[in-house]
Amino acid sequence: MTTTARAYAATSATEPLIATTIERRDVGPRDVLIDIAYSGVCHSDIHTVRGEWGPITYPQVVGHEIVGTVSEVGADVTRYAVGDRVGVGCMVNSCRECVNCLAGMENYCLKGNTQTYTSIDRDGTVTQGGYSTHVVVTEDFVLRVPESIPFEAAAPLLCAGITTYSPLAHWNAGPGTKVAVVGMGGLGHLAVKIAHAMGAEVTVLSQSLSKQDDGLRFGADHYYATSDATTFDTLANTFDLVVNTVSAPVDIQAYLSLLRLDGTIVNVGAPAEPLPVSVFALMGNRRSFAASGIGSISETQEMLDFCAEHNISPEIELIAAADINAAYERVLTSDVRYRFVIDASTI
Amino acid sequence: MTTTARAYAATSATEPLIATTIERRDVGPRDVLIDIAYSGVCHSDIHTVRGEWGPITYPQVVGHEIVGTVSEVGADVTRYAVGDRVGVGCMVNSCRECVNCLAGMENYCLKGNTQTYTSIDRDGTVTQGGYSTHVVVTEDFVLRVPESIPFEAAAPLLCAGITTYSPLAHWNAGPGTKVAVVGMGGLGHLAVKIAHAMGAEVTVLSQSLSKQDDGLRFGADHYYATSDATTFDTLANTFDLVVNTVSAPVDIQAYLSLLRLDGTIVNVGAPAEPLPVSVFALMGNRRSFAASGIGSISETQEMLDFCAEHNISPEIELIAAADINAAYERVLTSDVRYRFVIDASTI
Repeated sequence: MTTTARAYAATSATEPLIATTIERRDVGPRDVLIDIAYSGVCHSDIHTVRGEWGPITYPQVVGHEIVGTVSEVGADVTRYAVGDRVGVGCMVNSCRECVNCLAGMENYCLKGNTQTYTSIDRDGTVTQGGYSTHVVVTEDFVLRVPESIPFEAAAPLLCAGITTYSPLAHWNAGPGTKVAVVGMGGLGHLAVKIAHAMGAEVTVLSQSLSKQDDGLRFGADHYYATSDATTFDTLANTFDLVVNTVSAPVDIQAYLSLLRLDGTIVNVGAPAEPLPVSVFALMGNRRSFAASGIGSISETQEMLDFCAEHNISPEIELIAAADINAAYERVLTSDVRYRFVIDASTI
Repeated sequence: MTTTARAYAATSATEPLIATTIERRDVGPRDVLIDIAYSGVCHSDIHTVRGEWGPITYPQVVGHEIVGTVSEVGADVTRYAVGDRVGVGCMVNSCRECVNCLAGMENYCLKGNTQTYTSIDRDGTVTQGGYSTHVVVTEDFVLRVPESIPFEAAAPLLCAGITTYSPLAHWNAGPGTKVAVVGMGGLGHLAVKIAHAMGAEVTVLSQSLSKQDDGLRFGADHYYATSDATTFDTLANTFDLVVNTVSAPVDIQAYLSLLRLDGTIVNVGAPAEPLPVSVFALMGNRRSFAASGIGSISETQEMLDFCAEHNISPEIELIAAADINAAYERVLTSDVRYRFVIDASTI
């Protein structure tokens, strides 16, 4: 029996999101039904509903930073029980057969993982995201949210948190390493907190110094404005790792010049157009240019547990669902410190 | 007292190299004077003398794949003695003070190492390369050439050998790894031999199959033509490491698609113009795009010893110095299997 859920949906690329209802699939043997408590607002949501990443089918509900409480479990579910505090991030399934899935790296599924919204689900319908009161997800793609993380603040960890945690962990941010975080938005402010907790020396590279006090409070050791050209001279050949959270095209050569020997710049956002990369800039200091996409399910759980252990919470602004369209406009002007989260009880 | 050496020099960007004489500096306390036996011909030599990498001062002697015999040593030289079989590669000095030099990575000297030709030497003159009968070099930048490597074949190891060995070693080519080598020229054919000796499964990606028999004989396990579009479908998501020896611009996205999870493509040549890189192509499989420049002195010695141990020699065509201009034309049409080496006794 399907579940009727309330939701906020886009009906076209140009119109505001509106309140509606959607049907969630039957709770299958391995599924859990989640009563959504909070849903984070990611810039990706806006790109998607506005068709900026390609045409989509409307109506479409977005949102992939979901926390809630399990309210029903299928007959074969073993990991979760009614009442559990859980989360769902950017993906809700994968092929489970390719070499990456078999290695537990579902986020790099070679057939493309099933994203939380706009993907074709196993029942043939288009997946619908978290701006909603309920969602049904196979237990294998459900995370456990530690009790010590405030529920509403946990939501952004499911995308912004894992997206920054994964490259920091993979490229060994830690004691003795120098990490730069480019951009102080939803992803960047979490990258600062996580990298600091990992023990790295953290530098923020932001367009201006307007968020400097926040950055230092979140754990940054240094804070520079990229609008100041001397920044790039001052910091030349400095960093082991630069995590670029800015999706818009940047002057990648300028950031490459900041890497010391064997340093890596990793993009966690992707501009639509290719970036021109000078091989000479890579060859100096044997630098690498890489990109990272969210994280695996096991790594997402590891991240949540890490955040609980280190008292890391995103900085959020809680909004009612009816405010979502205004919130979108504020995201587009970077007028949010640092993540909007929808109170699902208002949907 | 300076040494007068015979040499072949470029006198302009457009005229043939001509026989001439040059003065080599006094043998200082830490210097060795080398009677050059053989000098390899690198594509870089041609780019340089023709001004394709920027204006240079003429006359200019090029050549940075030098082997010879020590004929005089300075008072404080400790590592070499008269009669030793030695080599000199792409660099003859570095700042010795920067963090990379102090780490023994002189090839990544932050002030720029002193290249074997076209650099300003410590006596203020422009360094002159190996198409010559003699050269004076500080002992710290001289390599020992193992007895078991044929002398004339050892020359190309000093540039082509270390340029390919270094990334193969750094990115852990070895048993269980799949390595692709793009291009089957002077660098590529050595990359195949070295990667095979390291224990990797080696695939050559060449424009055509014209050198397939050679490639398999050198140790490649597989050989594909990049002119065949199905090659890129067949080999998608396959390699841990792609070593791109082609300096001309390539479709980097096509090669990125060949990398499996956490794979790296490393350029050892550098096209003059930036390459457009799709961040989405990097994000799939968490790929990296990197570049590598020659190798340190200690790693170059390691490479020579590795080649001796594994009986690796470049395939060469020995030429008389008077044939250098004709050889250049043949390099430009890829009509060389696989490296020209000048017999310095003919200079």
